[in-house]
Amino acid sequence: MTTDGCNEALAYDVFARNCPSREALGHVTGRWGSLTLGALREDTLRFNELRRRVDGVSEKMLSQTLHALERDGLVHREAQQTNPPRVDYRLTPLGRTVADRLMSLIELVEERMPEIAEARREYDGAKG
Amino acid sequence: MTTDGCNEALAYDVFARNCPSREALGHVTGRWGSLTLGALREDTLRFNELRRRVDGVSEKMLSQTLHALERDGLVHREAQQTNPPRVDYRLTPLGRTVADRLMSLIELVEERMPEIAEARREYDGAKG
Repeated sequence: MTTDGCNEALAYDVFARNCPSREALGHVTGRWGSLTLGALREDTLRFNELRRRVDGVSEKMLSQTLHALERDGLVHREAQQTNPPRVDYRLTPLGRTVADRLMSLIELVEERMPEIAEARREYDGAKG
Repeated sequence: MTTDGCNEALAYDVFARNCPSREALGHVTGRWGSLTLGALREDTLRFNELRRRVDGVSEKMLSQTLHALERDGLVHREAQQTNPPRVDYRLTPLGRTVADRLMSLIELVEERMPEIAEARREYDGAKG
């Protein structure tokens, strides 16, 4: 155990505050990271295509999100030698594995939204 | 389709910016929400037990996180009639289903951290 509460030889632990796995999880599950991985799971996309798919993201936030995911080895950025030049973003094999697991969570939340919406109405009614 | 880009009769869609499923996903995958669900998946816990387990969370943030998860019907808060009084937090059946799916993502990220850490070293080396 290092002072981080986790290390490579033993195990990574997101519950430990300085463990780098917590930061990586944040990139995957963050507001824009999760939607970016979800969008790229469907297709290789260019920056502006991604921006349209991830409804509401700013250019700056999408750019930061893509950099973090590329640095973590989840997204591959490829500059095409075309005229005009274009840049494609696609998932790496590791990114695909992570995105599959993430989408299974996203789909569950979408499926169970009627129950969640009902719970919210009850909660707000009881407090109101 | 409503102006939200999603509705109950058709389907919820986290990619639509005003869809309430996006907010619910945020509660589940947020920095503190995800760790709180993960901790409660292991055991029913009191507030201070949770605070110790979710290393780094402030009292205020944990309180906000629990309220949001309770409102979404994922966490049940139960005041015990003991002296001194105590409050237990546990997952609802829906919360357990969501937490199971979430933990499978968290465990994947923890398992693959050596690859992610290696990708970061390569990325930083190439840029450095």
